[in-house]
Amino acid sequence: MTVRVGIIGVGLMGSDHARIFADAVSGVEVVSLYDADVARAKAMAEEIGARSVADTPLALIADKGVDAVVIASPDETHADLTLAAIAATKPVLCEKPLASSARECLDVIAAEVKLGKRLAHVGFMRRYDPSYVAMKAKWKSGELGEALMFHCVHRNVSAPHFFTSDMAITNSAPHEFDIVRFMLDSDVADITVFQPAAAAKGALVKPVFMVMRSVSGALIDVEIHNNAGYGYDVKGELVCERGTISLRSPVHSEVNGALANSIPVPADHRPRFAEAYRLQNQAWVRAIQADTHLAQGSSAWDGYAAMLSAEAGLRSMAEGRTVKIAMDAKPRLYA
Amino acid sequence: MTVRVGIIGVGLMGSDHARIFADAVSGVEVVSLYDADVARAKAMAEEIGARSVADTPLALIADKGVDAVVIASPDETHADLTLAAIAATKPVLCEKPLASSARECLDVIAAEVKLGKRLAHVGFMRRYDPSYVAMKAKWKSGELGEALMFHCVHRNVSAPHFFTSDMAITNSAPHEFDIVRFMLDSDVADITVFQPAAAAKGALVKPVFMVMRSVSGALIDVEIHNNAGYGYDVKGELVCERGTISLRSPVHSEVNGALANSIPVPADHRPRFAEAYRLQNQAWVRAIQADTHLAQGSSAWDGYAAMLSAEAGLRSMAEGRTVKIAMDAKPRLYA
Amino acid sequence: MTVRVGIIGVGLMGSDHARIFADAVSGVEVVSLYDADVARAKAMAEEIGARSVADTPLALIADKGVDAVVIASPDETHADLTLAAIAATKPVLCEKPLASSARECLDVIAAEVKLGKRLAHVGFMRRYDPSYVAMKAKWKSGELGEALMFHCVHRNVSAPHFFTSDMAITNSAPHEFDIVRFMLDSDVADITVFQPAAAAKGALVKPVFMVMRSVSGALIDVEIHNNAGYGYDVKGELVCERGTISLRSPVHSEVNGALANSIPVPADHRPRFAEAYRLQNQAWVRAIQADTHLAQGSSAWDGYAAMLSAEAGLRSMAEGRTVKIAMDAKPRLYA
Amino acid sequence: MTVRVGIIGVGLMGSDHARIFADAVSGVEVVSLYDADVARAKAMAEEIGARSVADTPLALIADKGVDAVVIASPDETHADLTLAAIAATKPVLCEKPLASSARECLDVIAAEVKLGKRLAHVGFMRRYDPSYVAMKAKWKSGELGEALMFHCVHRNVSAPHFFTSDMAITNSAPHEFDIVRFMLDSDVADITVFQPAAAAKGALVKPVFMVMRSVSGALIDVEIHNNAGYGYDVKGELVCERGTISLRSPVHSEVNGALANSIPVPADHRPRFAEAYRLQNQAWVRAIQADTHLAQGSSAWDGYAAMLSAEAGLRSMAEGRTVKIAMDAKPRLYA
Repeated sequence: MTVRVGIIGVGLMGSDHARIFADAVSGVEVVSLYDADVARAKAMAEEIGARSVADTPLALIADKGVDAVVIASPDETHADLTLAAIAATKPVLCEKPLASSARECLDVIAAEVKLGKRLAHVGFMRRYDPSYVAMKAKWKSGELGEALMFHCVHRNVSAPHFFTSDMAITNSAPHEFDIVRFMLDSDVADITVFQPAAAAKGALVKPVFMVMRSVSGALIDVEIHNNAGYGYDVKGELVCERGTISLRSPVHSEVNGALANSIPVPADHRPRFAEAYRLQNQAWVRAIQADTHLAQGSSAWDGYAAMLSAEAGLRSMAEGRTVKIAMDAKPRLYA
Repeated sequence: MTVRVGIIGVGLMGSDHARIFADAVSGVEVVSLYDADVARAKAMAEEIGARSVADTPLALIADKGVDAVVIASPDETHADLTLAAIAATKPVLCEKPLASSARECLDVIAAEVKLGKRLAHVGFMRRYDPSYVAMKAKWKSGELGEALMFHCVHRNVSAPHFFTSDMAITNSAPHEFDIVRFMLDSDVADITVFQPAAAAKGALVKPVFMVMRSVSGALIDVEIHNNAGYGYDVKGELVCERGTISLRSPVHSEVNGALANSIPVPADHRPRFAEAYRLQNQAWVRAIQADTHLAQGSSAWDGYAAMLSAEAGLRSMAEGRTVKIAMDAKPRLYA
Repeated sequence: MTVRVGIIGVGLMGSDHARIFADAVSGVEVVSLYDADVARAKAMAEEIGARSVADTPLALIADKGVDAVVIASPDETHADLTLAAIAATKPVLCEKPLASSARECLDVIAAEVKLGKRLAHVGFMRRYDPSYVAMKAKWKSGELGEALMFHCVHRNVSAPHFFTSDMAITNSAPHEFDIVRFMLDSDVADITVFQPAAAAKGALVKPVFMVMRSVSGALIDVEIHNNAGYGYDVKGELVCERGTISLRSPVHSEVNGALANSIPVPADHRPRFAEAYRLQNQAWVRAIQADTHLAQGSSAWDGYAAMLSAEAGLRSMAEGRTVKIAMDAKPRLYA
Repeated sequence: MTVRVGIIGVGLMGSDHARIFADAVSGVEVVSLYDADVARAKAMAEEIGARSVADTPLALIADKGVDAVVIASPDETHADLTLAAIAATKPVLCEKPLASSARECLDVIAAEVKLGKRLAHVGFMRRYDPSYVAMKAKWKSGELGEALMFHCVHRNVSAPHFFTSDMAITNSAPHEFDIVRFMLDSDVADITVFQPAAAAKGALVKPVFMVMRSVSGALIDVEIHNNAGYGYDVKGELVCERGTISLRSPVHSEVNGALANSIPVPADHRPRFAEAYRLQNQAWVRAIQADTHLAQGSSAWDGYAAMLSAEAGLRSMAEGRTVKIAMDAKPRLYA
């Protein structure tokens, strides 16, 4: 069965999804697109051979020829569109964030619980990245013992002009919040946010440095540096009882030239996580074909958890103190 | 248009191809399989959902429901089956070698020239490997100047019991012979083969060390070590006028443990070249949809060139001297 | 002029110093040794050809044939012996810590200020380690802009049975406290100490994770992990405005074997910092010959600063809060 | 006992030796210098505090205040000065080459045999380089089995204007010829020299690629590339039965900047082999103090062996064929 997918929003992320499905995923066809910018939707439809452009997001969701929906529209629309897809009992892959608040995430969860079925997945694609997968497999092998600490780093070349320290926590950090829970198999208990006194010269956003404790007792630290200057770089080291495991970014060649031996660092997330997106989207298609949810992927519950960490992080930064994180009781559906 | 593929031979390589098409390639459906071992063909058909198992290779090729053919049957059948596919004007992806001799390769070339169309591709998938592609792109950027030398290494953990030094040249080295021509944009002019006095203890196959000169004037050396013991490892360094470019194998994580910092080396070619196979097969499907041949992939002519190098290598090893390589005039079809 | 050195204490550190002077430093002769264990002192004197063994530390300091003194006796003796050497106007290289408290460090400082001469150096040898030196030089080159964050890691294989979390801060961390000030050219303003809930299994000492702010506004984090299991490992990454600089440990060879590519990690600090000790001790000899103090080395003031950080760290760990660090006014002597 | 050293020739190499002894070696004093350029000798004497400048090389050798001699004068003087030092029964450290021909090396050997004592060492300092030492130790541990192949690379940024391909073999390659014998514990049986068709643009010296067979049966290949453009780089990989060992150059820091992660490559041999020179010279001083020869260092016999390889290499390059190497019978003195 070929899964017929509709994509809502074909900006940066939606276009990438469209091309990934069209160029590198088996068993899927992108059949319909929607974008507030109709010309953009039409151009993308032509590029990938999608047969229709929908008039509204809800029309796309309602389309009988559409089996499943990708939501890549502006953040504030995510919750409502996800709820609409659930109402139509269609699987949905929603770009992060799932909603604008933890409160709103609970609405999505409630809808799924009522339906008795998990239909929503959040696009925390790092769970499919081979480096994180290898890290978790090594830890789970037991060879190195229990996880004690997890050092994480997220760096961009530069932040857009409208970026703020708040957004470092609500926009960049959620990938870290999710992968920390995935890696440690544990929720986050509390968070303390630090910042250096100064941003990089001319930059409006200071780095954010967060120390978290997991419920399982591990200590986590995360650097979010949106103006790192040199490249897009994601690092991680899991410190266990008898050794450590570190992520390696994809590197295809090294060069000796001009008194240096060097490897390239990418300018954005694409080269770093292309494989993660491909594998996530392929797994999503396979899960739809098998009428099941993604065991490894992020559920609505995971979207809620990431949002809670972000909200606690904001409070910690504002108030200069450690903030505890209290989660609702987890519905059996997400066990 | 979904390309309907038939696969002849579902042993090691054929099974890999079947799964790659089924799990990770867009726009393709594996519809028919053939294997001398019928049960094996049936099991694989079930696994990937192929609708039929053919009675004979020729029946598979003749099948009107089959648009294109993958040949992964025993080496001695490759030329005849490729000729049959060409006769049926169906695109064919033939695992290396294209034929049992350079002479026989010329028969395939003659058939294509007569038809006026390139239908055969040889599965020298390294041309799609991101590390070789990055190496060539860097060289072609001109930043480092002309290529002067190319150091190549191919290592397996251990050779099967029936392996010989001859097979190191005819079976393992062809991937090197092809990539050398691809990388340098030049044919090979001559070859000199060396061997150490001894193989690894208990091993029947000594390493083979080949020094070649390209028509363009570069010097190439290739180590083929089928009993390297420690892992599957392919290395390459292109030495240019102002610097060098080296391949990097895919590495996803590194571990600190027991007084060592280490990265894994794979036991076989799969982790090293998974991406190359996926990209080659995807490109092949796209080329069929566009009714063109693969610009980057290996043609029948390339299969002939690799075979010539292997035959010259055998002669050099037997006679202990440098052997010149003389190619036929290149038909315009392969320009 | 050959500098005639006396060494007080020839346990682990003192023996190392004796051998470094005897085997790898120019312009120096170790002439006298003292140890509470006389047999140990005699054996070492014989090994390196020192002409005498002193009856008491004070006798060694008073010896007219001794130009300069190394103090490597138990920690609680450091301050008094350093004061005695200053009273005798002899240069002294004191293993860390300089004293048992910041208060006591001020006594040493007062003695030097009264004398109007800096005679005491603290053995924070990392200031001579080529990797830290390269890091600082790169930062100072200005190419990467101002320093925003500094990530530091210190790991031992395992802690001795008597070790405690307090000692992680007072015994292991001082090298970090000193190098942070050296690297950033700034004092530490405050410190917040975290610990994971659990130590490594069977270990009595949990890792300690410290977040500090420099007076200059940078954010520093330091992991002290005395039971890291896998090896002795010191890491550092200085995050600047336009890039980062990381330390590299000395590595002389790499091995491919058994499905892994690996480099050795040492079992203790010696292979990591052999060069730092050699260069520090050579620089100390040169400074004595030139009748000056070590511009790059740690002064009594630096010993005081490191002690202040440790005392604040202890308080932060005990009270679970950020602790500010207030330094005395810096005497002009240390400008 | 302080060894009093005289240095003949204080150009590039002699100055380095003078400073190494003065700044980083224990138990030695440089007391006398000679150079054809008297001003240069005087300046260096002042810099390092040497008490005299000799009028002639022979006067320096004859000086009763000189215990041992370093020869760093022009190549053509090496043999005669070494013979003079042997005649004066003074230990001598001669920069490579030991003589201008293998024939002349045998004269030095004859003088030592007649004396019944090894006094001459050739400055093949790589035998003391920690990376080569680690490689040999790993091999000798037996863990990886016998050595089958040895890949070697020597690269300079650019050759001086008077350099020739012949000099690549006679001037640059001898370090490789010596280390190959040291590493494999075997002499070289034959050599085949290749060159690419072209040098780097504007360069007068093509790279030289040499394939050698050791008497023990291993296969060796050596790239000598004097116009590599990007830096000074020496590489080596020893391929054994169950794994490989590779050299690592000293690297103290790595930098992330401008879309690249890079480590520095030095512009000349100094940063690469500083430690090898220091350890060689220290070992030489220790051996003189103990009135013995250097077990690990290169003897006159080793100087002869390196010269034989170079002469055979020249013949192979000129005649385009494999050239066998026949050594004289080894005198018992060098057993």
